[in-house]
Amino acid sequence: MAKDKGPRRPRAETPKGFRDYFGAEVSERKAMLDTIAEVYHRYGFDPLETSAVETVEALGKFLPDVDRPNEGVFAWQEEDQDWLALRYDLTAPLARVAAQYRNDLPAPYRRFAMGPVWRNEKPGPGRFRQFYQCDADTVGSGSVAADAEICAMLADALEAVGIPRGDYVVKVNNRKVLNGVMEVAGVLDPADPEKFAHERGIVLRAIDKFDKFGDAGVRALIGAGRMDESGDFTKGAGLSDEQADTVMGFMNARAANNEGTILKLMTLVSGSAVGQEGVHELQSIADLLAAQGYGPDRIVIDPSVVRGLGYYTGPVYEAELTFEILDEKGRKRQFGSVAGGGRYDDLVKRFTGQSVPATGVSIGVDRLLAALRAKGRIAADTRGPVVVTVMDRDRMADYQAMATELRRAGIRAEVYLGNPKNFGNQLKYADKRNSPVAIIQGGDEAARGVVQVKDLFLGARIAAEASHEEWKAQPAQTEVARDALVTEVRRILGQG
Amino acid sequence: MAKDKGPRRPRAETPKGFRDYFGAEVSERKAMLDTIAEVYHRYGFDPLETSAVETVEALGKFLPDVDRPNEGVFAWQEEDQDWLALRYDLTAPLARVAAQYRNDLPAPYRRFAMGPVWRNEKPGPGRFRQFYQCDADTVGSGSVAADAEICAMLADALEAVGIPRGDYVVKVNNRKVLNGVMEVAGVLDPADPEKFAHERGIVLRAIDKFDKFGDAGVRALIGAGRMDESGDFTKGAGLSDEQADTVMGFMNARAANNEGTILKLMTLVSGSAVGQEGVHELQSIADLLAAQGYGPDRIVIDPSVVRGLGYYTGPVYEAELTFEILDEKGRKRQFGSVAGGGRYDDLVKRFTGQSVPATGVSIGVDRLLAALRAKGRIAADTRGPVVVTVMDRDRMADYQAMATELRRAGIRAEVYLGNPKNFGNQLKYADKRNSPVAIIQGGDEAARGVVQVKDLFLGARIAAEASHEEWKAQPAQTEVARDALVTEVRRILGQG
Repeated sequence: MAKDKGPRRPRAETPKGFRDYFGAEVSERKAMLDTIAEVYHRYGFDPLETSAVETVEALGKFLPDVDRPNEGVFAWQEEDQDWLALRYDLTAPLARVAAQYRNDLPAPYRRFAMGPVWRNEKPGPGRFRQFYQCDADTVGSGSVAADAEICAMLADALEAVGIPRGDYVVKVNNRKVLNGVMEVAGVLDPADPEKFAHERGIVLRAIDKFDKFGDAGVRALIGAGRMDESGDFTKGAGLSDEQADTVMGFMNARAANNEGTILKLMTLVSGSAVGQEGVHELQSIADLLAAQGYGPDRIVIDPSVVRGLGYYTGPVYEAELTFEILDEKGRKRQFGSVAGGGRYDDLVKRFTGQSVPATGVSIGVDRLLAALRAKGRIAADTRGPVVVTVMDRDRMADYQAMATELRRAGIRAEVYLGNPKNFGNQLKYADKRNSPVAIIQGGDEAARGVVQVKDLFLGARIAAEASHEEWKAQPAQTEVARDALVTEVRRILGQG
Repeated sequence: MAKDKGPRRPRAETPKGFRDYFGAEVSERKAMLDTIAEVYHRYGFDPLETSAVETVEALGKFLPDVDRPNEGVFAWQEEDQDWLALRYDLTAPLARVAAQYRNDLPAPYRRFAMGPVWRNEKPGPGRFRQFYQCDADTVGSGSVAADAEICAMLADALEAVGIPRGDYVVKVNNRKVLNGVMEVAGVLDPADPEKFAHERGIVLRAIDKFDKFGDAGVRALIGAGRMDESGDFTKGAGLSDEQADTVMGFMNARAANNEGTILKLMTLVSGSAVGQEGVHELQSIADLLAAQGYGPDRIVIDPSVVRGLGYYTGPVYEAELTFEILDEKGRKRQFGSVAGGGRYDDLVKRFTGQSVPATGVSIGVDRLLAALRAKGRIAADTRGPVVVTVMDRDRMADYQAMATELRRAGIRAEVYLGNPKNFGNQLKYADKRNSPVAIIQGGDEAARGVVQVKDLFLGARIAAEASHEEWKAQPAQTEVARDALVTEVRRILGQG
């Protein structure tokens, strides 16, 4: 870097782990979020938008990946010594809001929120440090009707954005049942709650990896530990074989129908008060949903779903897409989870000391979008604008007037604003923009009061398929009176 | 803070200088941005969404407030030593994108972007550290047709969101004319470009404060300096009285019509090549706009508009709302600027070394929203959901089924999910949510197959206005057959 040649130029690079979204990527996501917001709103939820920035103390440490030494947030210290950070989810800001405005908000408070969240993680393929979430939560209701309702809403939202019934299932479980199972298995040591919380955490995260590691892997993780293919060893929760049997029995308790599942669970937790309470809650949720017409084809009790987050205290739920896609290695696999949530009764308590029951769901926006793309369910209009070409630089005002006329008629249009010298570049530009129509008017046409209207999509088809004679006949280009410009463009666009 | 009582509770507080947006505040802004996006899209602009985070080197130092020692951004250092920061506007990320993807993007590249930006400023009343911007830019076009088009689009956008014609004006000026004026005045010293840039910066910012300080204040700032009411002295640009006369003559060159203004400007800059070029550009812009039907009632040449930012190189423009509002002290004043922009030909060059002409506008979203509110132009539906009350806790499923029926009919509805014991609390909740209708069904009504439908808005009117007899007759509450629930609610909501 030679100082006398002036400062080094900055690199034009998206920061590592971040990305840019162009055109249809932006509008497709927006359309999906608008549809979900409409469903949330119809269920009585109100929008809330907090800022991206929170104090570190308000955020707390509730990231799913509690094993990592790094806290996983982007944080900085203010001049007044306060630490600020970018939010890592939408639940922590909600808990702060629920505490801060507790005297003004309606109770229960039903809110939805959508927006980016940030995680300070090592960037990896397909793993970004900024991504969207789309949440709905009910704060201040201890009723399992609140949980059931969110499951129903989640099913409605998935169908509204284009996931057909049968291609998804919302699975419901209850942390209280797991606690009951662990109590029965003798893992729960009431004398040492911290030790229990730690072991339960290991068990939870192990069960949550069932999809990845299978029965044997999970069993190893809740037992002595698991050696992976590279030879790395992960210490287990230390459960005995008998205890592990009980936990695995819980995981595999799903029967042919909800009644069967509930019966099995009841047997597993007999002797645990909290376990029985959990099973009764599941029963109530199933009953409520059945009364609203949500059968097990859409929402089902499934004990294998536990959700990794430590803060859940009751019902947990997860939406899985059940259709198959090809993974990066060309193997078929189920698409998997696109949304999840559950009841967390202690997040507001952190601030106020008073327990406030709450339950809510978060949709993984990018995964759901990817699913819709995989199913061909995104019908975004990717057509570019009508391009008015510039044959004569001095007649810019005439060309602008044409674009203005088209826009007034509701047609997306623009004048080519690059250097007009090379006409081929103008058509290449229209091609790159995926423009349906180009307008051409040279001095000769202007004198005769006409314009050339070129159907670029038809032109492309003809160029690909037609014989030389057909091509020479130029059926894709029509000369019309200047007055008929809008009518002719409308005809080509199919709005005629 | 007694350590043995466990850790101190976190404070539930929005960080200083940030704020939370609830309900209608969120949906009103969204509706306005959606409308603006539609206009931008119709003009051929494509959406772009970059992440909130950029490298500090890519952002550069282009904040309007160049006087402050603090750089004005929220920044932090990564483990790999790179400095990252939250974007302070949407132009800097665009310049980075235009450089980074220059081989793939169409040229010219027309993009719009909307989203929050962050400024690390001292928080003050009405001054927030996160706020929305809404930009449209054309990168890669040197034609003043691109500038004219953005002015026309800005006028269209303002009218689309609800600012009537006559209540706004888009003012256009040209930095080249100012440079020409300074050349003529002898301020421009070609031998020392840095000194000139510095002095021009002071002059620019002084002129930009015309609204605030008036003629005498600006004259002091471009001359020896200005003493404010508190006795604080701001050093001036050091122009002689004669030089200041020339600059003030430029500022006040606006005549009764564009022709008159252009004539005055031409006289002022005679002898300066760059000045004459600037006046010719203004002439072209006025001609182009006139051909598209945008007369001086909407877009006008006004030399008093300079925009504070240092990086503009050609035409600059600003949208002002011309209606009066009352300020915080009850005095009438013009609403003022809600959008501004201009041509900046060197921002992409920072990265690539090659000059890329660009022009664009930024709408101050919060100010425009405030203007619409002041004019009563926001017609958001602030009605809450229909609330199905809970008379009998064991019949939750029945109540949920009612809410489900209403939602299926497209009606916003919810079951009360708080503690149902106190019925008065349920009606208070409905009131707080601004609910139009409450549904009531006790055991008696259930046995008879009916529901009570309560028109809460009518009820509130009657409570406020009616006599005791009228009130007792309860015309706001109707009993209908359970089957007729949806029909009756529709009738009350005026969807019958």
